[in-house]
Amino acid sequence: MKIGVDLGGTNTVVGLCTDEGVLLRKASRPTKHGDAPALLRDCRELAVEVCQAQGIKTSEVCQIGLGVPGSLVKETCTLTFGTNLGMSQVCFADAFQPDFTCTVHLDNDANCAALGEYVSGAGRGVRSMVILTLGTGVGGGIILDGKLYTGENNIAGEIGHMVVEYGGVQCNCGRRGCLETYASASALIRMAKEQLEQGVDSVLTQRIADNGGKLNAKMVCDANDEADPAAKAAFDRYVAYLACGINNIIAILQPQRIVLGGGVAGYGEKLLAPLRERVQADLMPADCEQGDLALAQLGNDAGIIGAAMLEK
Amino acid sequence: MKIGVDLGGTNTVVGLCTDEGVLLRKASRPTKHGDAPALLRDCRELAVEVCQAQGIKTSEVCQIGLGVPGSLVKETCTLTFGTNLGMSQVCFADAFQPDFTCTVHLDNDANCAALGEYVSGAGRGVRSMVILTLGTGVGGGIILDGKLYTGENNIAGEIGHMVVEYGGVQCNCGRRGCLETYASASALIRMAKEQLEQGVDSVLTQRIADNGGKLNAKMVCDANDEADPAAKAAFDRYVAYLACGINNIIAILQPQRIVLGGGVAGYGEKLLAPLRERVQADLMPADCEQGDLALAQLGNDAGIIGAAMLEK
Repeated sequence: MKIGVDLGGTNTVVGLCTDEGVLLRKASRPTKHGDAPALLRDCRELAVEVCQAQGIKTSEVCQIGLGVPGSLVKETCTLTFGTNLGMSQVCFADAFQPDFTCTVHLDNDANCAALGEYVSGAGRGVRSMVILTLGTGVGGGIILDGKLYTGENNIAGEIGHMVVEYGGVQCNCGRRGCLETYASASALIRMAKEQLEQGVDSVLTQRIADNGGKLNAKMVCDANDEADPAAKAAFDRYVAYLACGINNIIAILQPQRIVLGGGVAGYGEKLLAPLRERVQADLMPADCEQGDLALAQLGNDAGIIGAAMLEK
Repeated sequence: MKIGVDLGGTNTVVGLCTDEGVLLRKASRPTKHGDAPALLRDCRELAVEVCQAQGIKTSEVCQIGLGVPGSLVKETCTLTFGTNLGMSQVCFADAFQPDFTCTVHLDNDANCAALGEYVSGAGRGVRSMVILTLGTGVGGGIILDGKLYTGENNIAGEIGHMVVEYGGVQCNCGRRGCLETYASASALIRMAKEQLEQGVDSVLTQRIADNGGKLNAKMVCDANDEADPAAKAAFDRYVAYLACGINNIIAILQPQRIVLGGGVAGYGEKLLAPLRERVQADLMPADCEQGDLALAQLGNDAGIIGAAMLEK
């Protein structure tokens, strides 16, 4: 048995998995911001709790992994800087003792989510996979030859911060024109708003008013589904940029499969079908067999499963 | 001993290397376009020739590798489509018999050049390296964990065809805004011409006339060195785009070292110094230790050495 911990900004979730990455049980508590000892205790107690719920001894757990948001040193299991948790220099190596004496692994949350989706979700059976998470930002993760690829600094795979429009929209990272500024849920919303500001007639105007002045990605997708001109223009533009980013990944890495997760991927085949078409249209001839796109399957569980499955 | 063959569009070059990738001897003949039997015979005869010149027996050669321009099937040592050689469906597996009975490997020329530079040139001692060749186009090669990364279709690492300006300059590959259209020698020349067309005063105007109406990358670099306004504007723009491409590679792959080869890299430290500055300025905080840039060291020998060092 293996245990995975997803240390989120909101919740601390602990899951018990089989050695093959099947999630059996999970338990959670609100994350204790800024209180490292309390957070470590929660992790341990939740780990004991899932074992008890499953009716196994803690000694049957062969490894525990944690996915954390922030910079870290894998070798010492130390979170060096975790802005969203309000703490730094936290060592998790002994966090589960004396209840658990097994090995503890640490990696960042995005890497864990990629690994989880690879082992137990949309990446099953392929050798190489790239995952893009289309949420507030655009997250990325790379699996090559069946292993998480993390680069020299442990955060490779920042595909959302690949510039696809030199000098383009300002990104939070400081650069301009990052894929994130064109292919995140936030970007889709911005593109739709731009249409409305340009005076394009749209059902969204009323719906935004009905929704307390707020527009979200689902509203844009739904309106696109109804062939609303403003939503369609925004959605088409969004798909074109996302396809550009995907074709860049194919040119550089030629992964066997590209997996899409996060909020916008919830639009499902209605996103995938036009995206596939656009990706294929732009592929270089030698890449003609590439571009196998799929939807992520595990949602938030990917991070837990991936943490459980971490390897040295 | 190992033998490497660089099957270029102009010359067929065969080199004898130590097992560690030190080039001892080479011999070449003009490439026999469109005549596969003659080309195969040349390869074999040149291989025998370098052994004789070095005073070793052909039986002392433990493997032979070929770098070819085109699409291929590694497993069967077959060049499936080689436009620049004017031939297709050529199998090299038995090309060196009866003189040599050792294993024969095949890969594309760009992969071989990357591997050669890694084993015996600017990549020595690092775990991961990306090479960019700044010539007529922009070639790329990726070494991860000490091995050539070739993707699912054997031509991963097409970094020159990563779009950095969505909808930008038309590329030969069919897409628009590829790095190649901003960071190749051809791009530097175009950027300088654009300055001249805009009426910027420049020493280049007279020099182009003196050079039979032709402008090359070296002329732009030399004029930049003299602080010529048109050349400087073009060169600065070139460096900015190249830095953008390099930062994209760092965001995605975080290689330990990035190596620059090809014509424009011949400008040496005068290219590297401003480029390093620009790359560092745009790095994301977590990548602060990345961006180790170096110049390729082996020139055309990289392809021969890399071919000799190919692994299954």
